[in-house]
Amino acid sequence: MTAVMSEIVVDAADALAQARWWAEVLGWTVQTDDEEPGLAAIEPPGGPGAGLTVLFAQVPEAKTVKNRLHLDVRPADGTTQEDELARLLALGATPVDVGQGDVPWHVLADPEGNEFCLLRRTPSEVAAILAEQASAT
Amino acid sequence: MTAVMSEIVVDAADALAQARWWAEVLGWTVQTDDEEPGLAAIEPPGGPGAGLTVLFAQVPEAKTVKNRLHLDVRPADGTTQEDELARLLALGATPVDVGQGDVPWHVLADPEGNEFCLLRRTPSEVAAILAEQASAT
Repeated sequence: MTAVMSEIVVDAADALAQARWWAEVLGWTVQTDDEEPGLAAIEPPGGPGAGLTVLFAQVPEAKTVKNRLHLDVRPADGTTQEDELARLLALGATPVDVGQGDVPWHVLADPEGNEFCLLRRTPSEVAAILAEQASAT
Repeated sequence: MTAVMSEIVVDAADALAQARWWAEVLGWTVQTDDEEPGLAAIEPPGGPGAGLTVLFAQVPEAKTVKNRLHLDVRPADGTTQEDELARLLALGATPVDVGQGDVPWHVLADPEGNEFCLLRRTPSEVAAILAEQASAT
């Protein structure tokens, strides 16, 4: 018996604004329900049910410390980390220093200050490395 | 151009213990790398590259406030919420009160106090509801 991971829930000051921002980052679509005005979800391409959703939930309290959970994103295939960084900054992400030092990823914050990282490799590059490791063992 | 969600990163006091615990919860497998002793990942069935991974990263600082991001899990098809709750509690999850009131989900904490919710419906039940909503519109 196992549980199924279903949603990542993110507390928000403005759930809809956050959902719209992250939908732009990921190319996902925003889902809202008039009966639940404090909630806004984003869904991956393929619509509801196609995978993990991210649900933004309005809360009264503000963010106070570095988040203990964060998301990592990668540049899509065909995009460089540099180009994706430029796009994220243009969307309103801000660079943050959490003491990461000299690392090959960028630490950014979303409009409400939630830290996230832009990694270097694209999904295909990671898959190629994993395949190479598997064939070497 | 979009970014691709790649990982959920969870700060941990004991990354390996946390990875093992969540692997048990989700039926995923633990991946470690001898060169990175402070990191432990869990991967869904299908192995690395099959989907989003959860990466536990050892940090010196302790959890101080309610997490601003949390995971929701569902009972697997064929399991009731009650049975899954009993299993999670037996694994060492603890019920927590974040002011949720009378809701149809259970708010729990993992061994390091990270809040997560056990929802009521299984994935198939959610899919059936979504299909019904789609056919009604």
